[in-house]
Amino acid sequence: MPTLILLSRNADQYRALLDAAHLPNLEIVASPSPDCEIAFGEPDLIRDVLPDLPRLKWAQATWAGVEPLLDSTLRRDYILTNARGVFGPLMSEYVFGYLLLHERKILQRLAHQREHRWDHTLTGMLRGKTFGLLGVGSIGAHLASTAKHFGMAVHGFTRGSDSCPEVDAYFHTDLPSFAAGLDYLVCILPNTPVTHHLVDAAVLAALPSHALFVNVGRGASVDEDALADALSRGSIAGAVLDVFQEEPLPPDHIFWDTPNLFITSHTSAPSLPPDIAALFIENYSHYLKQEPLKYQVDFEQGY
Amino acid sequence: MPTLILLSRNADQYRALLDAAHLPNLEIVASPSPDCEIAFGEPDLIRDVLPDLPRLKWAQATWAGVEPLLDSTLRRDYILTNARGVFGPLMSEYVFGYLLLHERKILQRLAHQREHRWDHTLTGMLRGKTFGLLGVGSIGAHLASTAKHFGMAVHGFTRGSDSCPEVDAYFHTDLPSFAAGLDYLVCILPNTPVTHHLVDAAVLAALPSHALFVNVGRGASVDEDALADALSRGSIAGAVLDVFQEEPLPPDHIFWDTPNLFITSHTSAPSLPPDIAALFIENYSHYLKQEPLKYQVDFEQGY
Repeated sequence: MPTLILLSRNADQYRALLDAAHLPNLEIVASPSPDCEIAFGEPDLIRDVLPDLPRLKWAQATWAGVEPLLDSTLRRDYILTNARGVFGPLMSEYVFGYLLLHERKILQRLAHQREHRWDHTLTGMLRGKTFGLLGVGSIGAHLASTAKHFGMAVHGFTRGSDSCPEVDAYFHTDLPSFAAGLDYLVCILPNTPVTHHLVDAAVLAALPSHALFVNVGRGASVDEDALADALSRGSIAGAVLDVFQEEPLPPDHIFWDTPNLFITSHTSAPSLPPDIAALFIENYSHYLKQEPLKYQVDFEQGY
Repeated sequence: MPTLILLSRNADQYRALLDAAHLPNLEIVASPSPDCEIAFGEPDLIRDVLPDLPRLKWAQATWAGVEPLLDSTLRRDYILTNARGVFGPLMSEYVFGYLLLHERKILQRLAHQREHRWDHTLTGMLRGKTFGLLGVGSIGAHLASTAKHFGMAVHGFTRGSDSCPEVDAYFHTDLPSFAAGLDYLVCILPNTPVTHHLVDAAVLAALPSHALFVNVGRGASVDEDALADALSRGSIAGAVLDVFQEEPLPPDHIFWDTPNLFITSHTSAPSLPPDIAALFIENYSHYLKQEPLKYQVDFEQGY
């Protein structure tokens, strides 16, 4: 009977979901024991008990980002799986909420309404615009499907993959010239050494002045000073950031007073326990049958 | 050679589009002549010249709403076609822009940002919510497809039709009990005697208190006093109105200061000349072949 250690800020909810699933032969504990062979929970909480889990075979993270477990000083003698394939729909709600806010000039309309002004001028529209994805994984594929639903052209920038059928054109080199052809640039990159400050002053300068930049990946992919500068100079129309190099965003950070910037607080696509528990339950059935687990993380690549 | 009278506020743009299409055997004029057998333009402008077009066989409206031509004192001895099938995508952008603004608490996030507050609480999501359509024509079908894309359940209220596959459940009687089961009610009704004040105090009272009401059909479908009252009392969460009984909305109208109300100025889905010209061009080829025209209006039903 495998022993699982559950390490989550939502442990009660996860335990209820796992109990309801009547998983065969699973003992669930809340504190480390030498028998634990499965860990399920938040990567930072799992990291803290790694030394106390000598028989750990598999850790299922409740998050997409597993940076806390990637430190090269930590052991890597177990299978790490992350949360994937569940964030796309929520991320689409977030990203397209802000894209539509921008195109349909919702804030300007609201300002005119407050002045009791009937504003019959037309707004912009997503239809016909070009939507660029920096990183095309399962979240990117879902965003691409939403962009196509709204009649947009979809461009994707990846290291080499080009398998998403809803991406109309792939780019693998020369990020600035990729950026130059976009109306919207959405970054969904994980935090790895390769992605560090990939969105830099040159990329921002290449974006058209009417472009909107959205980051729902990790803050480290963006040169924050360069972005604050581009926004302050009006060299791009705006930015929407859900992630930052340091979270919570420090009280004295320049972004709090940067113009045309929307700050949300890493809430674009939360790990919802029912979604993540379903993912664990599926992987647990593979585990029992000694089949390959879904969504394994490559410790070197970092995702 | 048929003679067409072009009567539009965008006449120059329409003429360029029709010229570029090299339509066979078509003479285009700008002022009424006894030879005109086709009129193409805005319904109010066509109405003004109806008496001067003795040989009129067909009028193609650039709008969806053709109220100006429905007055029972006007002649009805010609085929009237309206603009249809082109507004769905733009209407989806509008409606879902406001739905996402509401669910994702974009304005509240912005207010917290202005206070330099890191707000890590979760927002709502469209996924799993129920989207109600009052009227399911071609616009409703597109809105339904967008709602399904976002993982919503779709309910539709119609007089009898039930042919849209993306509507999960149809209702034909008892509008208040239809309303009671919704998170969002979107009205897309045309202005006809049957639809007058269909959304009244009873329907608004039946909506859950967290519900949002959206009107992109015609203002006359809504009892505006009842809506202002429901919003002022907080009996529904909010409303988004693109259409009003009187447009422009009069300067002293109660809506200007009604809480939780978003006013836009009949701009949700404009008639874009390239879309409407394409529709005319298709219908013109049917006309030349003496085939039935698309989107014929029933003068009695009013749409």
